[in-house]
Amino acid sequence: MKIEIINTGSELLLGLVINTHLAFIGDSLFKLGLRVQRQVSIPDGEEIRHALAEAMTRADVIIVTGGLGPTTDDITCDITAELLGRELKTDTAVLKHIENIFSARGLELTAPNLSQALIPEGGEALHNPKGTAPGIYLPAIEDHSPHIFLLPGPPRELIPMFKNEVAPRLVKLRDQQDSAQAGAQTYTNFKTIGIGESNLAHALDEEFATLPDLEIGYCCRLGEVDVRLIGSPKDVEQGSSIIRKKYQREIVTESEDPLEQIIVDLLTEKKQIISTAESCTGGLIASTLTDVSGSSAIFQRAYITYANDAKAHMLGIPAQLIEDHGAVSDETVRAMAEGCLQKSDAHFALAVSGIAGPTGGSEEKPVGTVYIALAEKNQPTFSNRFYFPLDRSSFKIRTTRAALDLLRQRLQGFELI
Amino acid sequence: MKIEIINTGSELLLGLVINTHLAFIGDSLFKLGLRVQRQVSIPDGEEIRHALAEAMTRADVIIVTGGLGPTTDDITCDITAELLGRELKTDTAVLKHIENIFSARGLELTAPNLSQALIPEGGEALHNPKGTAPGIYLPAIEDHSPHIFLLPGPPRELIPMFKNEVAPRLVKLRDQQDSAQAGAQTYTNFKTIGIGESNLAHALDEEFATLPDLEIGYCCRLGEVDVRLIGSPKDVEQGSSIIRKKYQREIVTESEDPLEQIIVDLLTEKKQIISTAESCTGGLIASTLTDVSGSSAIFQRAYITYANDAKAHMLGIPAQLIEDHGAVSDETVRAMAEGCLQKSDAHFALAVSGIAGPTGGSEEKPVGTVYIALAEKNQPTFSNRFYFPLDRSSFKIRTTRAALDLLRQRLQGFELI
Repeated sequence: MKIEIINTGSELLLGLVINTHLAFIGDSLFKLGLRVQRQVSIPDGEEIRHALAEAMTRADVIIVTGGLGPTTDDITCDITAELLGRELKTDTAVLKHIENIFSARGLELTAPNLSQALIPEGGEALHNPKGTAPGIYLPAIEDHSPHIFLLPGPPRELIPMFKNEVAPRLVKLRDQQDSAQAGAQTYTNFKTIGIGESNLAHALDEEFATLPDLEIGYCCRLGEVDVRLIGSPKDVEQGSSIIRKKYQREIVTESEDPLEQIIVDLLTEKKQIISTAESCTGGLIASTLTDVSGSSAIFQRAYITYANDAKAHMLGIPAQLIEDHGAVSDETVRAMAEGCLQKSDAHFALAVSGIAGPTGGSEEKPVGTVYIALAEKNQPTFSNRFYFPLDRSSFKIRTTRAALDLLRQRLQGFELI
Repeated sequence: MKIEIINTGSELLLGLVINTHLAFIGDSLFKLGLRVQRQVSIPDGEEIRHALAEAMTRADVIIVTGGLGPTTDDITCDITAELLGRELKTDTAVLKHIENIFSARGLELTAPNLSQALIPEGGEALHNPKGTAPGIYLPAIEDHSPHIFLLPGPPRELIPMFKNEVAPRLVKLRDQQDSAQAGAQTYTNFKTIGIGESNLAHALDEEFATLPDLEIGYCCRLGEVDVRLIGSPKDVEQGSSIIRKKYQREIVTESEDPLEQIIVDLLTEKKQIISTAESCTGGLIASTLTDVSGSSAIFQRAYITYANDAKAHMLGIPAQLIEDHGAVSDETVRAMAEGCLQKSDAHFALAVSGIAGPTGGSEEKPVGTVYIALAEKNQPTFSNRFYFPLDRSSFKIRTTRAALDLLRQRLQGFELI
């Protein structure tokens, strides 16, 4: 079933608003086993005519968002009716709904508002509990035209309407089609960390040569790569086995949960507390952990020790140690982690000290150099030197991911290397 | 000049990633007096062929994002060359750049990496300081084909490349076209905080009735609204005067520098130090400040006091005070700020304590309630209660902006209210 989305709205093309409709609809459909084939953003006004006519030549289902309001550039419904050769007729139930909203607000109805009750012949109004403009569903007529859904633009109107009115109709269409066709597709996501996208792809493309129908997608963030497998349940399971076997350590999760969620879950389960002592990340590791709801069960306090003096005073590190080895050194970061562990009485302490740049690098320790240490109660402290030659903000994120991943590996029982 | 954007990436259509490229490019072009006419999202793979062929019939400039990576579904460059009938040739400068990156990282080059140095004949490689894949510019050949830009998908690679390589070339194209047309346009941006977008728009639309040719754009983030004026230098200056007069306190800057940059600049100038004591933001305020290069001149240490115990021990607050008033209270947050000021020996201390949610709210203090205090050496402490009923992560950002803005107002000489 080929599904296309048309998002109307000049604000999208001017960069005033980020288009979240595609992500919402794409994700919702994917979970129903359906996929968006193409999405287009166009300005308000006449452009909808060309975009709709084009999509009608390709798609089985078209979902249009926006352009159902009462202003003069809201012409989605008119143009659709025109392209399909259908008359507009007032829907009395919708008219009643609009009248109720206006009388509840003590406002007087104007002609543009009344025009929102006009529905193309053969169409069904989709109830809008959050606003005046109804959605409209135009069922396909014997394969001559695709199924068309017209939805209001504001997310607070679109989201409930999609869930309540559109999704159930699409499920019905899917089931009608699937009964004729073979095998439903399934989907798995692996979140990995520590392997570059090209290495991963290089290794997996070879391994997957025996699974030509399995679709592999890579989605790369700083230090993390999501690997998605899409295909028949059998192919996806075979592909998953290959990945599981090859990347035991590097697989953070087989869900879409972020690393920090995995860590909070693991620590919560073990009833253990984490603290951090952060220099170059300036609090980002702690902030990332506290993005997770429920993190207060595993996080109580942390130390941001940007200056040397702060490292010495807040964590009880001898000033001489920092002077001897430098703030960005294995010795200092180990002392930071151990000091943090002791001061906070946590089970784990992560410490980082590095050179975020753009200035402050040396030949021996260029910008991007960072030491990370993980201290654990009654265990030897682990530390390592990393090199993330990135812009300042990316460096902070990459360092945060690397530090959290050390903890994740430890919690999942891997020996740190 | 008709500009179209093609965003490739199955992750966009699967709803795994929100497409921020359109907003970034749309906004950047708007500031250059240019407009995006249409944007399309397509999956990785062969679809690029149809999308590109279609766009070539309509557009003067096509910007393609994604599909330049080293994996097998990265075929943007191949297909473009094929459609234009051009051979691919290795660009030796790009090859050298890729080799340098790999040798700096101590990695071995593979064939897929080498393929990233292939550029269609007649094309120019656009330097990618953040990754291996260069962008590619294919100038129009005597109106037979549009100008085509191929850009890497990751935002951290795309954004600097767009600014440094694409924007200047588009300005040149614009000016060639404009030389035939009338009057140069100018542009100003006001960064404001504390006024809602609709209030701002309502007030300014009235004031600007006398400037019908001045184009106003609003760009809204959490708590902040950018107001952009585009028009003739005379109109922009008149419009700017109106805004300056009306929103003295609320204007953070007349540049695009973020709030944290303004604060670091002001503190650096005054040679003053800021510290933070953070509960519900979990370190985000400190992390935001340290996103600014040079922040070490004004920031030395900070306290993340998530648990009550941490507030008492790290900041020297009587446990009884927290027990009497609650952790989320005016009394506690003032004590946090004052404790932080004393312990850190800073000139300013910001403290926040609130309920990020989704759980933990009460009737008296619902989720979204937050107290913020600003303590200053030898000055009475200021504090206030705020209400940001948002999701957890947005709440943290909104609270961070509000806290930093109190400091900004103080540093710019406004009395806090």
